[in-house]
Amino acid sequence: MTKELNIGIVGLGTVGSGVIKSIEKNRDYFKNNYDVVFNILGISANSKSKERSFNASNYKWFDNPLDIIDEKNIDTVIELIGGEDGLAYDLAINSLKNDKSFITANKALISKHGEELSILTEKHKNFFGFEASVAGGIPIIKTLKESIILNEIREIYAILNGTSNYILSSMSKLKISFDDALKNAKDKGYAESDPTLDINGEDSAHKLSILNSIIFSEIPSFNSIHIRGIENIELVDHNHSSEFGYNIRLIALSVITDNGVYKEVTPMLVDKDSSLGRVDEANNIIKIIGQESGDVVLEGQGAGEGPTASSVISDLIDCAIGSKLHLFSKSHSELSNNIDKISSGERPYYLRVFLKDQKGSMSSLTKFLSDSNISLDKIIQKDENSNNENKFKPVIMITYPVKKDEIDSLIDILSNSDIVSSEPLHMPILVKG
Amino acid sequence: MTKELNIGIVGLGTVGSGVIKSIEKNRDYFKNNYDVVFNILGISANSKSKERSFNASNYKWFDNPLDIIDEKNIDTVIELIGGEDGLAYDLAINSLKNDKSFITANKALISKHGEELSILTEKHKNFFGFEASVAGGIPIIKTLKESIILNEIREIYAILNGTSNYILSSMSKLKISFDDALKNAKDKGYAESDPTLDINGEDSAHKLSILNSIIFSEIPSFNSIHIRGIENIELVDHNHSSEFGYNIRLIALSVITDNGVYKEVTPMLVDKDSSLGRVDEANNIIKIIGQESGDVVLEGQGAGEGPTASSVISDLIDCAIGSKLHLFSKSHSELSNNIDKISSGERPYYLRVFLKDQKGSMSSLTKFLSDSNISLDKIIQKDENSNNENKFKPVIMITYPVKKDEIDSLIDILSNSDIVSSEPLHMPILVKG
Repeated sequence: MTKELNIGIVGLGTVGSGVIKSIEKNRDYFKNNYDVVFNILGISANSKSKERSFNASNYKWFDNPLDIIDEKNIDTVIELIGGEDGLAYDLAINSLKNDKSFITANKALISKHGEELSILTEKHKNFFGFEASVAGGIPIIKTLKESIILNEIREIYAILNGTSNYILSSMSKLKISFDDALKNAKDKGYAESDPTLDINGEDSAHKLSILNSIIFSEIPSFNSIHIRGIENIELVDHNHSSEFGYNIRLIALSVITDNGVYKEVTPMLVDKDSSLGRVDEANNIIKIIGQESGDVVLEGQGAGEGPTASSVISDLIDCAIGSKLHLFSKSHSELSNNIDKISSGERPYYLRVFLKDQKGSMSSLTKFLSDSNISLDKIIQKDENSNNENKFKPVIMITYPVKKDEIDSLIDILSNSDIVSSEPLHMPILVKG
Repeated sequence: MTKELNIGIVGLGTVGSGVIKSIEKNRDYFKNNYDVVFNILGISANSKSKERSFNASNYKWFDNPLDIIDEKNIDTVIELIGGEDGLAYDLAINSLKNDKSFITANKALISKHGEELSILTEKHKNFFGFEASVAGGIPIIKTLKESIILNEIREIYAILNGTSNYILSSMSKLKISFDDALKNAKDKGYAESDPTLDINGEDSAHKLSILNSIIFSEIPSFNSIHIRGIENIELVDHNHSSEFGYNIRLIALSVITDNGVYKEVTPMLVDKDSSLGRVDEANNIIKIIGQESGDVVLEGQGAGEGPTASSVISDLIDCAIGSKLHLFSKSHSELSNNIDKISSGERPYYLRVFLKDQKGSMSSLTKFLSDSNISLDKIIQKDENSNNENKFKPVIMITYPVKKDEIDSLIDILSNSDIVSSEPLHMPILVKG
């Protein structure tokens, strides 16, 4: 029997417009292959008069998006405006309370309000789709919820932010500065006018907290993730990493340890030839390491009209005919609440300082290292690539495995000393890539 | 409400045993996360007395596997014995006719009898799960059926046979002969005692025909696939491909053309740094190129107890709580029946002959080429690596793009001439990898 969904869409940017065009274009396909019909009964966005890539006059316009919820005929609300609070939050909460299905690409919303959303969807038995919130067109949410036996997963490594990956990969490929790479990313539409959350790692952490909530059956917990961004990476770091056989990538990772799940977003050195190291442009990748099922890797475009709209559509189809599973992987009462950051195991680190070019600097540096019990596997000091009118010269070190706390306290000491300029850069090295 | 499945399992090799152990181990997990309970009410295999990795005496034994179908309480039959006809076929047909759900890893069965299975499942409204039939632990069937808008897919490139990938990647990595690589594969358990179907490309073609049936809404059509295996690839081919920047991989591909879908299983030269070229060991990969959703790549272990059992389990969960979709992507009456091979477009080819080391051979070879209208981009003749006591020397050529028919007729001419020893080897070069 044909299943119909009556849809209201709030947010008509590239993704929202893409969803509408896909519904228009694939009407026969959805009917023939899934026996579903999608009717768009309402649309809303900031500006009614803005020119769009579809004919907006074909659809009923709502000046106030919250009025869409009051429209009795609409059973499914798609939110594509973003933001962790404000209108997106109001739309979500009110849609769920009014027994409407809710589909969103809003990772910040789910990351912050996951517990409340989980309680509401369970109480009101809503469908809540969020495939588009993580990794654009890659069906990672459905794969985790339906295809993989989750309690076998021990580790996950992912590149979840296309903007930062574009910046990092183009810095090393084109030998350009961070600022030039960011400018390119903006020119090509890979970065928004304010790319703060992309670059400082918070966007990746929002997404990681969503994946964690499914994999480890926990309330999304942004605060339990160690987060560092890519702001302080310089071309010299790419050049030296490359010499050692590594690329720099912004990695989101979760690893089961004896003390709980260690979660982190951090730039890392990853083997150039590994699946993570090879990810170029604005692509995303998720590598899941299972106990029995082995590694499963999913890769694709992490953003953009087509891929993200396609994930919204797959939620619509699931909403119409799919199984009703818990929002995350268990009933909200069984989700654990892990709010604390736990300590990392030992890892080798890449360490770069700009060392004052004067007698005694190097011996001070090595004394700081030995005082902190940090041993070096490699050290490189070259005359080239210096900054600050040659008063400081880059020193690159690869440490033997140490804990994050140990390297953090060394960085503190170094930052407060007068032998280095600016803050030293440290990045863990990923042994499995 | 808790959903229970009462299961009979036929075939207790590594995968069958893995499924039973997973059901035993994950009982609480399945109950808590999916609210499903799996009861194993019958098992059957060739030998009752064989030692197994689980305690077989915990389950009711059936000497005749077909008797499992008569067991009223059993609602779900899992077939893990293999073979395109015989017992596997009888089990499938009779299970479906008796309104039981059916789950299998048997690609040959589905490839050969897809139409009949599609008709029967539609008539009897059975659940028919076959996630484990293609690419082991990679959830490609579910991803295609539920996550990706299929009519956007223009091309698919895949490595679907772990045995042949292990042979090819170890030949080039260890600089060993085909025979030595095959022996290694057998020693490591990556190749069965009779690896014919793995090596000659037929196993890959079975799997490709299943993917095609979903993507292109057609009856599985093994016969419409051009098939060549990896039997004639020598170490010299790996060495020269490598010099040009390529790895040799057994690629299963389908590409939409103006004349229909071009389907082929063939060894190809693929860029070393591409996602396909990098696949090592016995891994599998599927690269889907969509019109709007971009590329999506799935990679993982293509075989083995854990990954394959894990796919069977995901079918069991879908069977209990999932959506009931068509066996392939449409009702059987709407599937197209494409039984003919269509002609390829133009592609550059790698061509290797062992040329008789005598005056005039080279000019004969170039005359054959020019008579066939095939132009060369590169040609390499070295004195090293010759076989046949130096009476023949390898000549390696890269052609400008030509059609498969043209290269095939050149190969015919060369094979019948006396200037080359044995059959010349030709492999297309994949431009996008």
